[in-house]
Amino acid sequence: MQVPQFADIEKAHRLIEPYIHRTPVLTSKSINQIVGAELFFKCENFQKVGAFKFRGACNSVFSLSEDEARNGVCTHSSGNHAAALALAAQMRGIAAYIVMPENAPEIKKKAVAGYGAQITFCKPTQGARESTLRKIAAKTGATEIHPYNYFNVICGQGTAARELIEDAGPFDMVMCPVGGGGLLSGTAISTKALLPGANVIAAEPAGADDAFRSFHQKQRLPSVNPKTIADGLLTSLGELTFEIVVNRVDDIVTVSEENIVAAMRMVWERMKIIIEPSSAVPLAAILENKVDVKGKRVGIILSGGNVDLGKLPF
Amino acid sequence: MQVPQFADIEKAHRLIEPYIHRTPVLTSKSINQIVGAELFFKCENFQKVGAFKFRGACNSVFSLSEDEARNGVCTHSSGNHAAALALAAQMRGIAAYIVMPENAPEIKKKAVAGYGAQITFCKPTQGARESTLRKIAAKTGATEIHPYNYFNVICGQGTAARELIEDAGPFDMVMCPVGGGGLLSGTAISTKALLPGANVIAAEPAGADDAFRSFHQKQRLPSVNPKTIADGLLTSLGELTFEIVVNRVDDIVTVSEENIVAAMRMVWERMKIIIEPSSAVPLAAILENKVDVKGKRVGIILSGGNVDLGKLPF
Repeated sequence: MQVPQFADIEKAHRLIEPYIHRTPVLTSKSINQIVGAELFFKCENFQKVGAFKFRGACNSVFSLSEDEARNGVCTHSSGNHAAALALAAQMRGIAAYIVMPENAPEIKKKAVAGYGAQITFCKPTQGARESTLRKIAAKTGATEIHPYNYFNVICGQGTAARELIEDAGPFDMVMCPVGGGGLLSGTAISTKALLPGANVIAAEPAGADDAFRSFHQKQRLPSVNPKTIADGLLTSLGELTFEIVVNRVDDIVTVSEENIVAAMRMVWERMKIIIEPSSAVPLAAILENKVDVKGKRVGIILSGGNVDLGKLPF
Repeated sequence: MQVPQFADIEKAHRLIEPYIHRTPVLTSKSINQIVGAELFFKCENFQKVGAFKFRGACNSVFSLSEDEARNGVCTHSSGNHAAALALAAQMRGIAAYIVMPENAPEIKKKAVAGYGAQITFCKPTQGARESTLRKIAAKTGATEIHPYNYFNVICGQGTAARELIEDAGPFDMVMCPVGGGGLLSGTAISTKALLPGANVIAAEPAGADDAFRSFHQKQRLPSVNPKTIADGLLTSLGELTFEIVVNRVDDIVTVSEENIVAAMRMVWERMKIIIEPSSAVPLAAILENKVDVKGKRVGIILSGGNVDLGKLPF
């Protein structure tokens, strides 16, 4: 199992810089007053397709050789990774085959189709998704790009923390949410390389706490029936991301659904920006006093901004 | 009646620059594709107190002589101007007396009180508001700062268009919403001075169309019973703002409530920023084909971002 190093993230950054947005880092005086710290928010909600996922997808697509690229890329996803991979493939001018559960939200199907991907629908089970994907990969020769447990995806995601530190660092602490661990792995590698003295802290919904349990028990313990409003964080750590997280992250804490909604609302009201529930999880951990930030400079990655305005939790 | 000139806006800008945010100008590739133009959005939703109103309030407060300032400032308002004036007064360290209707939303009362203003509640009628304000002004000697029909307020509001043009101009057209006309007056003065060839176009809800009627009939015709979701635009032009608007604005168009909500939703979904309904009115006019922007560079002022998340129109 090859573990990415910071040099791999630097290489990814050079490769994807022409395609990604260098998203802004925003601050809020009133949130700083409430929490008694200086928080710096890296706004990946403003990234292309509305999420950091575009970084990893872009790096994966543009890292393929000409021969590999010719057959396209494929994945199964009902979320931001599907849209990100579809757009990255469109930018390189290659095919993207996306397996989606037939009950995926219409808006997500439209987004993926809008980027020119070829969608195959399947029953909404993990087994059906995986077997459908295997068939498509066999038929087309497309390269499978896993949403997080994949070297080049992790390298791409690590560029967000690198930009955050370059543009607003140094920090005492860098925080991000954790689902499958792609963003957290990249964040930990970049942060430990650029700011060896800074802590890397991840936050996870209590209802989908596999990373919390896996990290503290030092063995991979996937979630069985995760449930949370933070729909980007339902996935469990993979073998590669577990390896990186357990070795490079300083702590993982969990938060309640109630505090996720409160943190999300605080960002919407005070900062006037739209973030999805997953993005609010680190601030929720601060509001819940799970992380001591008093007097510290803290970098936080806001992972995305894709919400269904017809189904808001307010 | 003294009409502000661009030199007065430049002077206001020098005075308030240490206190205001120089808000960003954002673009959206997908909205540009939809409308077939290049739109540049000046984000006053990120301004202090969440609205452009802080510019005019700040200029009015800091333009007072020491003698005048000693007695404080006063106004009647249930909206963004009240919060803006309260914060500006707090920054100068003087008293702000705000008359609010007793049925004003709790969140607005709290915001104004949070900035240290002294609030007097009255019956929710125009008569009660004016008579209560007169009594307070007589008792305290405070200077009344009208929300729009006031020289220094107009000069402050004009700094937003100046920044927009400096940071992202030139434009073929500059657009903003119109309520009482303070923002539109300042926008017209700045734009005609900096870009004499550009058109200044205002958009107004059809349900509160006094500026539209007044402009086209060249006489001031206040609204009798205005009704619109764009709650910042319920007011009618004053004598001073009418004078400026009728002489310097190229056109005023009206839009439906439906298109205001559609435009607001488009900005939320595509740009991931929170704007209030009033901010969406110019884009609504473009979506409604009331303004021809095809192939043009258009500057648009997003007036504010204060919405009640518990009462969204989606």
